[in-house]
Parts: sequence; C-alpha cells; structure tokens
Amino acid sequence: MKTLGKSLKRPDAITKVTGKAKYVADYQVKNMLVGKILRSNIAHGHITKIDVSKAKALPGVVAIISADDVPDIKFQPTGLPIASYPEPGMHADKNILTNYVRFYGDEIAAVAAVDVLTARKALELIEVEYEELPVYLNPQDAMTEGTVEIHPDSKNVLGRNEFTIGETDLAEAFERCDLVREDEFMVNPVQHCQMENHIAYAYMDEKERVVIVTSTQIPHIVRRVTAHALGLTANQVRIIKPYIGGGFGSKTDVCIEAIVASLTLAAGGKPVLIDMEREECMIGTRLRHAIQFKIKTGVNREGRILAKEMISVSNTGAYASHGHDIASKGGGNFFRTYPAELVTHFEGTTAYTNLPPAGAMRAYGIPQVNFAVESHMDDVASALGMDPVVFRKINMIQEGFVDPLKRNMVIENIGLDQCLDKAKDYIGWDKKRKQYSKCQTGDRRRGVGIACFSYGTAVWPYDLEVAGARMKLDPDGTLQLTMGATEIGQGSDTVFCQMASEITGIAYEHVLIEHINDTDHSPFDTGAYASRQCYVSGQAVKKAGLEIRNQILERAEHLSGIKVKDLDIVAGQIVEVNSKRLVISLMDIALKSYCSMELFGVIKSEVQVDVRSTAYAFGASAAEVEVDIKTGRVEILNICNVHDSGTILNPMLAKGQVHGGMSMSLGLGLSEVMLFNDKGKPLNNNLLDYKLPTIMDTPDFGVEFVETYEPTGPFGNKALGEPPAISPAAAVRNAILQATGVRVNQTPMNPQSLFERFTLEGLI
Amino acid sequence: MKTLGKSLKRPDAITKVTGKAKYVADYQVKNMLVGKILRSNIAHGHITKIDVSKAKALPGVVAIISADDVPDIKFQPTGLPIASYPEPGMHADKNILTNYVRFYGDEIAAVAAVDVLTARKALELIEVEYEELPVYLNPQDAMTEGTVEIHPDSKNVLGRNEFTIGETDLAEAFERCDLVREDEFMVNPVQHCQMENHIAYAYMDEKERVVIVTSTQIPHIVRRVTAHALGLTANQVRIIKPYIGGGFGSKTDVCIEAIVASLTLAAGGKPVLIDMEREECMIGTRLRHAIQFKIKTGVNREGRILAKEMISVSNTGAYASHGHDIASKGGGNFFRTYPAELVTHFEGTTAYTNLPPAGAMRAYGIPQVNFAVESHMDDVASALGMDPVVFRKINMIQEGFVDPLKRNMVIENIGLDQCLDKAKDYIGWDKKRKQYSKCQTGDRRRGVGIACFSYGTAVWPYDLEVAGARMKLDPDGTLQLTMGATEIGQGSDTVFCQMASEITGIAYEHVLIEHINDTDHSPFDTGAYASRQCYVSGQAVKKAGLEIRNQILERAEHLSGIKVKDLDIVAGQIVEVNSKRLVISLMDIALKSYCSMELFGVIKSEVQVDVRSTAYAFGASAAEVEVDIKTGRVEILNICNVHDSGTILNPMLAKGQVHGGMSMSLGLGLSEVMLFNDKGKPLNNNLLDYKLPTIMDTPDFGVEFVETYEPTGPFGNKALGEPPAISPAAAVRNAILQATGVRVNQTPMNPQSLFERFTLEGLI
Repeated sequence: MKTLGKSLKRPDAITKVTGKAKYVADYQVKNMLVGKILRSNIAHGHITKIDVSKAKALPGVVAIISADDVPDIKFQPTGLPIASYPEPGMHADKNILTNYVRFYGDEIAAVAAVDVLTARKALELIEVEYEELPVYLNPQDAMTEGTVEIHPDSKNVLGRNEFTIGETDLAEAFERCDLVREDEFMVNPVQHCQMENHIAYAYMDEKERVVIVTSTQIPHIVRRVTAHALGLTANQVRIIKPYIGGGFGSKTDVCIEAIVASLTLAAGGKPVLIDMEREECMIGTRLRHAIQFKIKTGVNREGRILAKEMISVSNTGAYASHGHDIASKGGGNFFRTYPAELVTHFEGTTAYTNLPPAGAMRAYGIPQVNFAVESHMDDVASALGMDPVVFRKINMIQEGFVDPLKRNMVIENIGLDQCLDKAKDYIGWDKKRKQYSKCQTGDRRRGVGIACFSYGTAVWPYDLEVAGARMKLDPDGTLQLTMGATEIGQGSDTVFCQMASEITGIAYEHVLIEHINDTDHSPFDTGAYASRQCYVSGQAVKKAGLEIRNQILERAEHLSGIKVKDLDIVAGQIVEVNSKRLVISLMDIALKSYCSMELFGVIKSEVQVDVRSTAYAFGASAAEVEVDIKTGRVEILNICNVHDSGTILNPMLAKGQVHGGMSMSLGLGLSEVMLFNDKGKPLNNNLLDYKLPTIMDTPDFGVEFVETYEPTGPFGNKALGEPPAISPAAAVRNAILQATGVRVNQTPMNPQSLFERFTLEGLI
Repeated sequence: MKTLGKSLKRPDAITKVTGKAKYVADYQVKNMLVGKILRSNIAHGHITKIDVSKAKALPGVVAIISADDVPDIKFQPTGLPIASYPEPGMHADKNILTNYVRFYGDEIAAVAAVDVLTARKALELIEVEYEELPVYLNPQDAMTEGTVEIHPDSKNVLGRNEFTIGETDLAEAFERCDLVREDEFMVNPVQHCQMENHIAYAYMDEKERVVIVTSTQIPHIVRRVTAHALGLTANQVRIIKPYIGGGFGSKTDVCIEAIVASLTLAAGGKPVLIDMEREECMIGTRLRHAIQFKIKTGVNREGRILAKEMISVSNTGAYASHGHDIASKGGGNFFRTYPAELVTHFEGTTAYTNLPPAGAMRAYGIPQVNFAVESHMDDVASALGMDPVVFRKINMIQEGFVDPLKRNMVIENIGLDQCLDKAKDYIGWDKKRKQYSKCQTGDRRRGVGIACFSYGTAVWPYDLEVAGARMKLDPDGTLQLTMGATEIGQGSDTVFCQMASEITGIAYEHVLIEHINDTDHSPFDTGAYASRQCYVSGQAVKKAGLEIRNQILERAEHLSGIKVKDLDIVAGQIVEVNSKRLVISLMDIALKSYCSMELFGVIKSEVQVDVRSTAYAFGASAAEVEVDIKTGRVEILNICNVHDSGTILNPMLAKGQVHGGMSMSLGLGLSEVMLFNDKGKPLNNNLLDYKLPTIMDTPDFGVEFVETYEPTGPFGNKALGEPPAISPAAAVRNAILQATGVRVNQTPMNPQSLFERFTLEGLI
C-alpha cells in the first residue's frame, strides 16, 4: 500500500485547529430566532392544561407550539435498522411534542423568540398542569402486571426475543457439565457526552422547502424521518450536515430536527436555531441502555463450555428509539465469542420505563454484555481454578466458525488469539498474575485482569448496507471526492481520501473531499454508525476510484499508444510500468478532459454499493490496577487494548479511536452513571456532577494492533470505530477481582460502590 | 409530446414574484465588506503615480489593492470559444488591475471597506497621476500608421480574417453581373442593460479556497478564468451562481470576479461584495461592438445574386474580450443567408480603440451584420425594381445547402421561406406595400419593411459543445435534476424540467430542478450563451432521462414480470402499454430503491454529452411604421417576428424570448447608443440619458412560429434565445425607406439622426 497504512494528516486538521471549520453554531444568519424546548418536570403523566397565552404575549416571542400544533403522527426517530424501511414501523411511538409525558424532560412545547433570554422567559411563562401517573424506573417495576402502560398495548414491553442454538436440551446439557456457575450483572445508564451538544437550525428556502442544518450522523435518514414526522414528502426537506463535534450514536436519532423544523414552519419560514445546553442534552437526547444480565455457564473438567444461557433485560426508557435491537445484538455476541459445545440459550427483553430514552451508543449494547460475559468468564475460570487466559483460549471462537445467526456465514478471519497473547505480554500477565495472586492485605492492593471481545462490522444481514461516492477529476488534476458517508470527527474523510489516493494513484494531498453532507448533493449513504463507513462506504470509494483510474489510463493509452495494462499512475504522473518512464502528466489529461475537442469527457464516477457481508473485529484488553481499599478508588497502573481490525488504514487515527474508546469504557466502568431520584428526576445531568473521566483520571493507554487481512473488507479492513469502547471495563473489573477478591458485578465501580462492597465483604 | 410544447409555468415563478428567490444581493452575510473599484477618468495613458496612503488611513477601510498588488498575469476574461482552451490564448490582454489605462473607466484600484460610504470616500482619497496618451475612438484612427499601440505589438489590430468562397474570381464575377450595388453601414455601440447589474461577493472558506457568489452566465468558465488570473489552481476557486437577473452576454465575461476575489484575499478572507452601480456597469462591463460594413452585391437581370463582398471593421474597444470571433461570425452569416451563385468574399477586421471593451451580446454580432445586409438587400431590390420579398425568395438559402465554413455540413431544415410568408401575411404586405408606394408628401408617412435572418445554434465546430446533467429519483417519487447549464432568467430550467418529464414520464411538477449552479456540485457545462442550452444541454437531459426511465422500467419488470417494452410511465404510474392497466406506482419503486433489501439501488444518472452538430434557426420580421418627418420620430404601427426554431418547447416562454428580443432590436435600431466625447468620456452611461425603450416606447409585438423539426436537436428544437434580437431593426429601417425614400444606414435611427438626414435630403 502506498497511501493507506500511513499516519497521514487529516485534511480537516488545519481547518479545525484554526477555528475555521464551520459547525452548526457558526451558521448564524441574520435575524435568526432562538428556539427553546419546554420539557416536562415530571416523569409520567397527562397534561391536563397547557396555557401559552402569557408566553405568547411576551414581546419578542415569534412562535409557540405544543402538541396540538404539530401533526398527530407517530414516528420512530432512529435511522437503523428498522426505520430505514418505509413503513412507520412497530416502534413509531413518538410525537414531535406530546400531551402525555413519559420521562422527566419530555418535549411538550417549543418557543421561537428573538433572543435566548426571551425564549427562556417565554418557557417560564407557559403554564402546564399535569395529572401525574406512577413512575417506573426499572423494567421489573414497569413490567409488573397491572401497571400503567407507558405506551398503549405494550404492557411496557418494547421487544423480546429468544433463541436456542444447539441440538441438546438446555437442562440436559447443564446436567452433563462438571461445573455450572450463574452470575448476575447490572450495567447502569451513561450518557454519550460528545463534545458538541445537539444543535440544529432550520429555515424555509425560497422553494418553501424546510432546510435543516444539523449536527447529525445520518443526514439522509434524518431527512426521511423528519419528513415523515412533519407529514411532508422527502423532497420538501433538505438536510445539511456541516462539520460536527462527535456523536457516539447519540446523533443517530432525530432528537431536535423535527422540533426546530416545526418552529420554522410556525414562524413563517424564518430561521430558528435550537442549541441544546449540556444539562438539556444529557436527558433530552439518548442514554446508553441500562441492562441487567443473568448468565449461566456449564463447563467440563477441561474447561470447555458445554452449555450457556443469558437472560437480559434492557431498559429503553420512555421511547423505543432503536427498539429491541440493542438488547438483541447482545444475544448474538454472547453466543459467538465463546461458542458453547452443546447449546446456547438467550432470552432478551427490552422494557419501557420512565427514564429518558436510551438509544444507540458506541458499540450498541456490546459494552454492557461484554462487561457481564467477560466478568463471568473470570468467575467461571476462578471456579475451575484455571487461568482466565487459558480458559478463554480453550473456548474462544475459531476460524471457520459458521454463524447460524448470520445466514450461516463462515467467519474466516479471526485474530483474537494473537490479540490475547499480545495483551497478555503487554501487561506482563504471567509474572504479575503470579505476583499479585499472593495474599494481599494492605490498603493498596494490585491485580491484573483481562477481557476479550468480538464485534460485527456494519448491520448486514439485518438491514441494508449501502453507500455512495462521487469522484470528479478537476482541470488541475485534483480529485474531488463527495461521499454520502458522514465525517463526525472520527476521521473517516481522511481515510476515504487515502483510499481514493491508493486506488487512483493521485497524490493524497490532491484528493479534496467535501466535508459537508447535503441531501441535495451527497450520494445516498445511511451514515455514521455500526463501525460501517470504512468497511461499507470504503467499498464505494474503491469502486469509484477504479473507474476513475481506468478512465485516466484509457486516455493515456489513447494519447501514448501504450496499453492500459502497461501504465500506472504514480504521484500524479502516468508512467510506463516497466521503465517507470513518464508518459504524460495527470494534469495534462485532466485539462484536456475539459477543453480538448479530441479528448473531451470529464473524468468522473458516481457509484453506489450494496454490501452483503459482515466481518468480525476482535480484541483484548489487559489492565493492571491498584485498589485503595479504604477509599474504593481504583488507579489504573497500566492498560492496553489490542485490536484485530484487519488492515489498519491510518495508524494515527486508529490509535486515536482506541484512546477515545478506552476512555469511554473506563468511564462506564469506573465513574459514569446517570442518576435519578425515585420520581425520575435527573440528579446529575451536568458535567460537574456526572463523572466523565477528565485527563486527570486518564492513564496512558497502550494500543497495539494485530493486523490481519479481512477478505470482505475493501482494503482488508474491518470495524475499529466502536470496538475500543468494549472490553477495558471488564478487564479492570477482573483486575479488581484479583486485587481484592471481590466480584464487582455492577457499573460504575466508583469509590462509593466499592467502599460499600468492601465494607460488606469485610475488607474495611 | 406530453409535456413539451405546452406553456407550463416556470418552477421559479412563485419564488421570483414573491421575492423569495435569492439573488447575489440577497446573500448578505455578517460583517460583509463593501468593495468598490477605482476607475480611470481618462481614456488612455500611463499611471505615473498612485498614492493610497490617505485612503488607507481612513477608518473603516480594510484593504486597498492596485496593479502592484495583484499577480502580473494577463488573462482573457471570456469563456468562449477561445478561452475554453487551456492556453492563455492570443487574446490574454487584461490584468486584474492596470497601471496603463486603455479606456475611461479602466480598473486601476479597488477598496474593501466596512460600508459603502467609506468605500466611496476611500476611492476619492486615492491620488492618481497620469501621463496621457492620444485617444482613439474608432478603428480607422487607431489603425493609422504610427499611432500609439494600445496593446504592444498589435498595431491596434486585434484580429483579421478573410475568405473567398466560389471558384470565380471576384472582380470577374462582378463583371458578369447586370447590376452591382455597394453600400456602407454603421451600427453603433449599445449596452446590454440587463436588469441586474454585475454583482459578486467573495470570501475564503474554511479550506482557504476562494468562493465567489456571482451573477454569471458561465460558472465553470469563471472558475477557470478567475483561477488563472489569480495564479491559483482550479480547485482553489469555487463559483456559485444563485438566481440571476439577466445577462444578454454581458455576463459571459469575467468582469468583477477576479477583482472581488483579490479584495477578499487582501482582506484576509473576509467576505467582500462588489455591487456595481448602473453608471459603472454601463461602461465597466462590455458593450455591443460598433461595426462598420461595406457591402457590394452583384445580381443578374432575374435578381439572382452572383457575387457579393463584405468588408467589416469591428471596434472591440480597449480589450479583446471575445476577440475577433464576433466580427468573424458575421462573415459566415453574410455568406450563408443569401448564397451568391458564383463567389462570396469577406474581410473582417477587429480593432482596438479606447472605448470600453465590447463583448458578447445577444446574437453575437449578427444584429449588426443583419442590419447592414437586410438594409442592403432592400436597396438592391429597389435598384432592380423588384419587390424585396421576391428578391429575398430568389436568393435565400435552400434545404440541402452545403456549408464549407462548417466542415461541409448540410443544412437540412430551413423554414425561412414559410417564415417570410407568414411575416408578409401578418403585416398585410401585398396590400400595404402597394398602398404606401404611392407618393407620400405629408408630415406623417407610412411604410412597410421586411427583413430575414439566419442564426446558428451553439458554437460547434469552432469549439466544444458539451453539457452535463444529473438526475436522481427521490424516495417520494420526485425527480431531482441538477444541470450544469445556467438559468439566467431565460427559462431554461423550465424547459429542462419539461424535457425531463417528457422523457421519463414523471409529472412535470414532480421534476425539481436545482436553480443554483455550484462548481463543486453541478455537472460541467460551459453555460448560457449562443442559444445553446436547449440544444446542447437538452441532449444531456434527454440522455439522463432515458437512463432513469430505463432503470425504473427494469425494476417494474422485475416486480411485475411484464417486459420493459410493454411498460410505460404515465403521470407517475407505471402502466402496461396496451391495457393502460396500473402495474405499480412510481413512488413504490422509488421508495424501494432506497430501502428494500431486494431492490436497493438509488435510481440516478449522471451524463455528459459532447454535441458535434449545429442547426440554423431562421426567421423574418415585418414592420409597419409611421414616420413623423418634422420630428424624426418613428412610430411602430405594427411589427411581428416569425421564427423557425424547430420545435417550440414552451410557447409562453418562447413568446417571452421573442418579445424581449424584438424590444432589444428596436432599441438598437431606434434609440439606443452609447455616446462618448472626443476624449472617450462616456456621456450617457445612465438609464435616463441612455434611451433604452420603456414600455411607453414599445408596440404590441406579433409573434408567430413556423414549427419545423430539426433532426439534430434533442426534441427537434434549435436556437431561439438570441434570434429574436436580430431582424426587427432592419425591417423598421426598410419600412422607413418605403415611407420616406431615405436610406438610413446607421443606428440608432433616432429623432436626432433622422431629423438631420431628412433635412439633408430636403424632406424638411
């Protein structure tokens, strides 16, 4: 590879660090109105009266809307996978504004005013009266017989699925085991906390279309969903995604776009900006699902897993968002990483409660299931008296695995074993494990822990995996690249430019990518989620690039008489393959393609791809911790992630992804949790009280790659965006276990919870 | 035809009449600076000193640039035909700003300031000293031996060409004639006076590219020319053309784009707007060439033209702009409309003078040559004692004409004879000609006159004729159409939508066109000129539409089992051709193309065409006038244009084009002229003193079409944009001749000039 595999600089690097990149907030236009959302201050109940008259009378208020002012259309605010189908879907359970509030913060009205102070004042002047209903914060309460249904005819169950894989009867299989262990785990809700809050501005253009400039991961889907919610056709809505400051899945939901669009419609088409505050964003967008797990594993004397079962109950909060898919994906993951010899059983349920809605978040439910499974693996190993690494190696997925959950696809490329070895070596496993296994009695005790993971790339075969790319050779020999895929800060545009350069032979710095998505101009692509873009959209870049390359070489053949097969493009020059002799410059060909009577024909390509494959990324985390028994504080002495993501396309960006993911997993494991009182009122929806790790909390991260070649990836690559966020928490949990002997089966393992556990266990 | 041929409403009609359409002036952004150009107040001379220090010291002035601050690069500001080649070209004679002024109004400096008053004040504070040079206002003076060369090594000749077609020696051919007549004509300079003055704003985007939002007819060419002038590569410049208010050829030159770009570069990338005032626009952009003609025609007794010769001298003013092409095109036109049996000789010269530069203007030099030739035709007919209609019919071009000037193409489709008949009938020629031929002696005398024309469509084979179109079927079944072609008010977008509807079967109102051109997003097309868009770009619409139609029908075949050939698309439904039975709705197919696992594949097409043909439009004007001898005022009692433009694609828009063109020709013929004093100072560069016809001066226009079918046109169509502006002036001149017996061989035939002539001729 010439360009891929190198740590090339982001094309948007200078633009961003110099502050020139335009984010939504930078699109301030003349006379833009400020939109603010009135959110319920109870978690469950009917609105019996809403009086906006005082607010309307406030000078500077331009429009006020409540549930009666928006279409009575229920929609599903998510893009994938279900909502990409035309049918409203079984989970279309949300109105733009509601008269029936389902969580503390539910959207009941919105105001557009000339400035932010007026808008805030107007919210205060809206009088709302409620008839309160019981508040259910956990699935068990919500699903109890006779409770109030948060959504009609739901029994507060959003979705449920189960599967059994294996011929043997489950009970019989457990009977045949030499050891059976059962554990329970609880992963509590966290928030994405992406740098840029949700923000969108909308206006009506001169054709009376609603244009929404929004910080989203899924522009084309937002267009469809918003049009549906507004009762408009797709062509009446246009979505523009400028530079955006992260999403982590939070921006794969239509959270504010339909509201801001409704405000501009109510304001006669005037531009309206909704710029969420952090406090609002933390409850008014999406959470990571809180999920409870029961896992039961049966092994034989040699440590081989014969049978296993997982029962998970996921808390979606007030609305479906991604539906039951997140819990369901966990079932597959449970089945796949350590396949049982005889039988695997999974039961998953997703319940409605009165928490803020949970949605997609980096790795889509797998960090939760991974915490449970990898903790449980250590517990089983410990019951067997077996080294956790050895136990994993005995049971881990092997190349050639046939996956009945994925249309019997065969998983051919698995670097998990090497990842585990590398992680083990990195942390000094054999030595330290032995060292720390001696009885520790002091206030500060150490341990090492390990955890593995597997993670599917993209969403096929559950849903379409499609992408589009457009390329055009400009008269100066530069290549203009327009993707449907969405750069949200992760660096995908960089890698697309590298891919384009790799395939076409045009210098990397001469590949100029359009950072802005616009549903009017960008090819169709479903967006940034599921670690799909380099894998799926990368196929589009490859295909378009090959077309461009071929068009260039055909011209060169025409001009030089040398056959295409004997020509190559190297750094903007067409050369003869054997002699390396310059045949003609790319610039010559580019210019002639615009203005030569003989050679006219702009060299361009627009392709779409429909990728019908998936690939599994693998990896392992190893952590060494020191636990302060008296305070419950865990210090990470050393930690690493080792990833098999196939080919590493840009090591610098790849490391960046791993750093960010590890930080996120440590947050989930050690400090982060969204707290609510028993009425469902959020207690810490701000970055002071919500303990997002800061740089002061963050250890050095070891990052290693096991480079395999994934045959289904466009360049041998597979998922890397989400995987880093999966396994560190469990590795830390297992290290705490070695250090203290205490099995902490709940997140966050923060000082408060550890202090309580240590007290309970008699360590303090 | 289902959609074409109908007077459908413009898709931008409501947008425009409600004031929502965004023109450049509507793109006001925060902190936009006002740019103003300092123009020379002498017509010819060197700048010996330019001192901007006082201006720079003025608070609110952000940047001042003069010749030394811009690249020393000479460029040709036009797009066609020569400048579409990569080479700077023989006519690259212009700098962005100059130290050597060549006309009164030449650009010597520019200022960017916080508001318009500051900018104007700054211009006043710039001190300029000149060393004046002799001023040449007409070609004869400029081309005299020993004069100062306005451009080095030019001898003040910009271009010259000649041809002789026919085997016979010219002198010998004239010898063989029974009658030879020679006349001289002078067509004086006029101004386009499009509704919207030249206006552009520029800024640097976050990638440090120069973005220019400009009122132009040729966005892609402006990008190339501006980049060249600025010493940048094409990809460093982006051109956006919003709604624009007319151009008539004036906006096929880069007049202000390079200046406004230089200002934003000087102002650190801040947005700068140059919004020309009318006074400035009338001298600071382009004029229609003043051209002198000598024509000599020899006929036999039967009225057949045996030999003819034309010598034309064209005045390009201070800069080349379109070079010699405009004068040269007149030669072909002279040769073609009434072919001589034995020999035709043409000599054309274009000279530099110190007038403001002349450039393209609707019909590109042909109104000038037509005034001369059609006047001369009447004079020859009169010498022969022959009816001018009969004389024309004897000599006019016939189907099957082989054109040696156009690669021996055969002109197959000629409706000129029918046009002439229709015009004759419209005006009541036979009766009135006879009636008015009786000796008239009163103060008010009447006459009828007639004139024909021919006009080539587009510019092949002199230059490339290429276009691009992109279509995409949206999920709601609407068709998004993005053209490279440029809507400038003429209605091309309307007709493109009709074409797309016609070909695809999608309802006209469901074809949604992007009105804004953007070199980043629009397919490549050279723009709006040469009556080319419906003819050339129409081929792109047709090609893309056929691809879309085919993709739709293939899906329908897949879903229904009915073969593509038995299916049709009618008003958004796919029906079986024979039974007219509904097979499936277009909307179903559209939706599935975005989200069906089985049928994914966005239905889209991006095509480019390279049209290697031309077609001739023909027509005739007939006018009935009453001349007030004592005042020299001419009243148009009745006038019509009859056009053979092949298929008429939208009769309402076609009539609009004809109305506008006729008005323009009457302005040229009767009232308009740019006046200068002997120092080259403009005397009437404002709409009070420059006599553009107002509605009060405008008669009812008769408009008729002779619908032929042009085989090379995408829908049988050929040029209509420019032709209406060609022949009315000559028809009026010939009517004045009948009314008064006076041959007025110079434009404008305004009261002043007629009064002088009538006095001279003894009528007064």
